[in-house]
Amino acid sequence: MAEGPRPKRKREEEAGAAPHGGTVTAPFPLAELRLRRVLRESARDKAVFLHGEVTSPSGEGTDAVVILEKTPFQEEKVSDLLKKHTKLDLQMRNDIYSTYHLYPPVELSEIKTTVVYPATEKHLQKYLRQEVHLIRETWEDYKNITLPFIQSQSFSIQWVYNILEKKAEADRIIHENPDPCNGFVLVPDFKWNQNQLDDLYLIALIHRREVKSLRDLTAEHIPLLRNILQEGKEAVVKHFGVPGSQLRIYLHYQPSYYHLHVHFTALGYDAPGSSVERAHLLADVIDNLAMDSMYYQKRALTFALRADELLFKKFQEAGRV
Amino acid sequence: MAEGPRPKRKREEEAGAAPHGGTVTAPFPLAELRLRRVLRESARDKAVFLHGEVTSPSGEGTDAVVILEKTPFQEEKVSDLLKKHTKLDLQMRNDIYSTYHLYPPVELSEIKTTVVYPATEKHLQKYLRQEVHLIRETWEDYKNITLPFIQSQSFSIQWVYNILEKKAEADRIIHENPDPCNGFVLVPDFKWNQNQLDDLYLIALIHRREVKSLRDLTAEHIPLLRNILQEGKEAVVKHFGVPGSQLRIYLHYQPSYYHLHVHFTALGYDAPGSSVERAHLLADVIDNLAMDSMYYQKRALTFALRADELLFKKFQEAGRV
Repeated sequence: MAEGPRPKRKREEEAGAAPHGGTVTAPFPLAELRLRRVLRESARDKAVFLHGEVTSPSGEGTDAVVILEKTPFQEEKVSDLLKKHTKLDLQMRNDIYSTYHLYPPVELSEIKTTVVYPATEKHLQKYLRQEVHLIRETWEDYKNITLPFIQSQSFSIQWVYNILEKKAEADRIIHENPDPCNGFVLVPDFKWNQNQLDDLYLIALIHRREVKSLRDLTAEHIPLLRNILQEGKEAVVKHFGVPGSQLRIYLHYQPSYYHLHVHFTALGYDAPGSSVERAHLLADVIDNLAMDSMYYQKRALTFALRADELLFKKFQEAGRV
Repeated sequence: MAEGPRPKRKREEEAGAAPHGGTVTAPFPLAELRLRRVLRESARDKAVFLHGEVTSPSGEGTDAVVILEKTPFQEEKVSDLLKKHTKLDLQMRNDIYSTYHLYPPVELSEIKTTVVYPATEKHLQKYLRQEVHLIRETWEDYKNITLPFIQSQSFSIQWVYNILEKKAEADRIIHENPDPCNGFVLVPDFKWNQNQLDDLYLIALIHRREVKSLRDLTAEHIPLLRNILQEGKEAVVKHFGVPGSQLRIYLHYQPSYYHLHVHFTALGYDAPGSSVERAHLLADVIDNLAMDSMYYQKRALTFALRADELLFKKFQEAGRV
């Protein structure tokens, strides 16, 4: 799973987690933290998720989650880093190649530290590394396991409707095709701060409300999908100067929410969720539907689930894992 | 393109780049390096690729490539990091969440530094960020542009034949099905050091020699592909204890070399080249061929090319970009 180390908060959670006027807790006593275990590490992202405990004067322990993440290099400070390093240890030399450990001055070695304190069991579970398994879902699996699960959950997608009805984020809309059947709205994804194009990330939300996912698509939806592909590319080059050949345009299966949406990410950006076990290129989806209107009601689809996800348990109960 | 910051050296290059008994060059004078430009950065990997220049006493400048990469956290040193930090600056506090900049003691803040010195123009080009573009290759494009390009290049795949003939890496073979038509050899990929299962990476090389890529596959190859899928999974669980549900098994298009091979990577590992614009799940490939033997001689396939690649120029010349 291509997930970065940032805590991934769902939109609904965000308001609740950071209420205006919320209680300001005491400063966090990091030096007194007793490390209980490493919840998860990411060697690629240079991040580690820790479960720690702080003991109060009365001897009572309180849980905390501490996330350490090394920071990207800042271009304007690289010269300083090279000039002011405190030590350079040779590790290996071979022909024109050599490797070293360079020790930067303290002021250039900051680590981004995120603390959740006090942390509940739910916080700990959220950051704990979970085994991930691939599911190969047949159409029968979808009908018998996945669809009943989706229907039983009644996930709230009010925030999607708020955008479509201009009750929220209206000023963020990059492009709209207002057609109720073949139209959509293109907005920047929450993960993208729009400060740089490197990690450009937009989402197209369709106006129609009865299309949950890839599994609901038939040839009937080709005009809608073509509009998203064509108009989406045009809007992105117009607003951001990024040509269509530098955009990865795809759907997720399973998606995070069951209102059909399409991801637009910068091709050079290794976006979470762009790996082959989750992403389906929109151009391929259109070609598949043109070849066979019932393609997505016939074919097996692969996706990954965490072992603690409810849908995974449903597949387990059905003997399909 | 999901490429990590490690210099990606082709197998053929490796012997040449690091000859036994090669000249040992003088220690690299890092503090005297004059930074000329940033060739490339990766915010996700916390790495930066620099072009620098060292001026000799005679006033002559010599180019160098310097790669800085922050290092992953080591579990056994995390406690020290928390206890011995030199400073903790509060950045933000909101309810139970707070963020800080933590400044570790110098000895825990090493940066992996790789130097190529002296560096040629070719080295600089290799690390320079290049624009990447998506190509949507029709079957006609393949016949008229890609296939003639492959044939004109006559890439050496002697190293593949060496493995298949047990002239090299024979001791590394994890599994073999010796059937000349439907058999294959499974070996650890060079990128995997086998020290940990997190980044498990194996390659299945087929014994047949006339199958260049996905584009050559028809229903005739289904038995071979099923063998790779089934026996590959069995061999990995037997040798490494990793079950098939935790393996991402896929082909690349375009591949790095034109002898059909299949990638096996740990599902939890965000392997370079596992993104949707390059990877094709073996299970999907088999289903596509079962549905239509000529699937890969009909369908458009998407892949990314760097603007400085020769194949990209061929597509440009043909007016297809």
